[in-house]
Amino acid sequence: MSENIYVGVDLGGTAIKVGICNEEGQLLQTYEGPTETSKGVEAVINNIEKYVRHIVEESPYSWDQLAGVGAGFAGFTNIREGIIIFAPNVGFKDVPIRAILEERFGKPVKIDNDANVAALGEAWSGAGRGVDNCVCFTLGTGVGGGIIINGRIYQGFGGMAGELGHITVVPDLEAIQCGCGKMGCLETVSSATGIIRMAKDAVARGDRTSLALADSITAKEVFDAAKAGDEVAMRIVNRAAYYLGKSMSSVAAVLNPEVFIIGGGVSKAGDFLFDEIRSVFQKLTPEPLQRGVRIVAAELGNDAGIVGAAGLHLRS
Amino acid sequence: MSENIYVGVDLGGTAIKVGICNEEGQLLQTYEGPTETSKGVEAVINNIEKYVRHIVEESPYSWDQLAGVGAGFAGFTNIREGIIIFAPNVGFKDVPIRAILEERFGKPVKIDNDANVAALGEAWSGAGRGVDNCVCFTLGTGVGGGIIINGRIYQGFGGMAGELGHITVVPDLEAIQCGCGKMGCLETVSSATGIIRMAKDAVARGDRTSLALADSITAKEVFDAAKAGDEVAMRIVNRAAYYLGKSMSSVAAVLNPEVFIIGGGVSKAGDFLFDEIRSVFQKLTPEPLQRGVRIVAAELGNDAGIVGAAGLHLRS
Repeated sequence: MSENIYVGVDLGGTAIKVGICNEEGQLLQTYEGPTETSKGVEAVINNIEKYVRHIVEESPYSWDQLAGVGAGFAGFTNIREGIIIFAPNVGFKDVPIRAILEERFGKPVKIDNDANVAALGEAWSGAGRGVDNCVCFTLGTGVGGGIIINGRIYQGFGGMAGELGHITVVPDLEAIQCGCGKMGCLETVSSATGIIRMAKDAVARGDRTSLALADSITAKEVFDAAKAGDEVAMRIVNRAAYYLGKSMSSVAAVLNPEVFIIGGGVSKAGDFLFDEIRSVFQKLTPEPLQRGVRIVAAELGNDAGIVGAAGLHLRS
Repeated sequence: MSENIYVGVDLGGTAIKVGICNEEGQLLQTYEGPTETSKGVEAVINNIEKYVRHIVEESPYSWDQLAGVGAGFAGFTNIREGIIIFAPNVGFKDVPIRAILEERFGKPVKIDNDANVAALGEAWSGAGRGVDNCVCFTLGTGVGGGIIINGRIYQGFGGMAGELGHITVVPDLEAIQCGCGKMGCLETVSSATGIIRMAKDAVARGDRTSLALADSITAKEVFDAAKAGDEVAMRIVNRAAYYLGKSMSSVAAVLNPEVFIIGGGVSKAGDFLFDEIRSVFQKLTPEPLQRGVRIVAAELGNDAGIVGAAGLHLRS
């Protein structure tokens, strides 16, 4: 086996996941260990090194075949300089991670944020395989996004392209404030947090819903209640879907991508959510902008971050 | 003079404008003649050939230095095949213009729509000079757009990227139907047509405004009345500016461009309009997405189309 391999690192607050990809974006092997954030930055970096060395040693590939290491994480980053500016869930602040890891591995290292690497993973070997231009929405605690143009992550002027959760989409009269300080961002209605908030509001104002019986409400419970015919829950799901479809319509007018990929925990609601999003997108988008355009579910699940991080060397 | 030159053609319903550019995007010479649309497709093509040959003959450059001809026009086009699918104002339908002109000139020919070539012209040697990523809004009868990424026109999957006039931006309760069939498009409020419609509506419902005295209302008259302190006109201008700023905020969340360029007849309203757009953009856009981002007026005026068409060979 003389082919090159790439290791992707998904640096999370609880676990560090690593994986080996070949040049076609196939994920060949994975390994995972604790982050140990509480032990400090040095310990976390030692763990990254340990897990990366471990997975290559346990693999049929030699260290010489390792052509590069990529890492993704939640937070702000200076991609050009390879510095993690702020990654709260691993406690990193102004850490020149690229230089540190290149020194330790003797290999080229690239970094990017979690939404971008997840988008790249899907574009490279997931739902966007073989597609030049796609746009990914990741629906989790917030709404993340990644823009893939000509197969590569598009960063924009200040590295802030793809902040799709902060498209202003809710009309003033029903807008609430987003974590970013602005009113009416997509994230306020179509994230797990937004869905839970709408459910709690409905319960608090006495709407008749099965959600009122729950101790604490999760987004999954709202979807389950909606599937079971609970009208309040259905209204909430439809609202989350409506603003996603509306945002995609705006994105289509700007970028006319071939595929919209939706991933993240909330996307697991499945056809119930996707049918509604597709129907809104169709209703709000001029026909030439939706011709041949697909809205699909992400395929790689939690592995998208590892695959995309590995792909940073070939696709960024 | 051994340098290469490029001729750009701006094919309009009334006039065909042609110009010579050097490789740096400098417009060296222009010429213009009637389109003669009424005489039919063949006559129009003959005129294009005549004006292009004429401007090169009258120039200090030789025909051998001509490295390519580019043409822009209002309508739908298949860029890959070089076919004008539909250009109503010159009466072209399914005309394989690239093949025809390449045969006549013995030179490579490229085509694109007017909004894209205007955007490219500004990016190459106008307000976006030296900038990698910019987004242009052209405010005329409609609202056109062009997306420049890494200095080149970004086409999208179906060649429909940059249809910025069809971003859904007006809330349902005050939305009217756009020419594209959808409700609430930017074009319904921020084009000359939209501004005139809002003014006529105001007059029709008896709002107290100096515009009621005009025989027919133009966008310029609305701006002039607003500058003179007419409150109804100011409200209309602010509304046009508000939805432009709001659309830019959405585009910023998607693409994080360095510069927004606003051109077209309506943009001549100047600071009065721009100040309002900038203020709305600031209010609606998360801070990291506006850091260092500029909103500026187009610089090339009516020449943007010629320059951008010439640039198709170097920048598309």
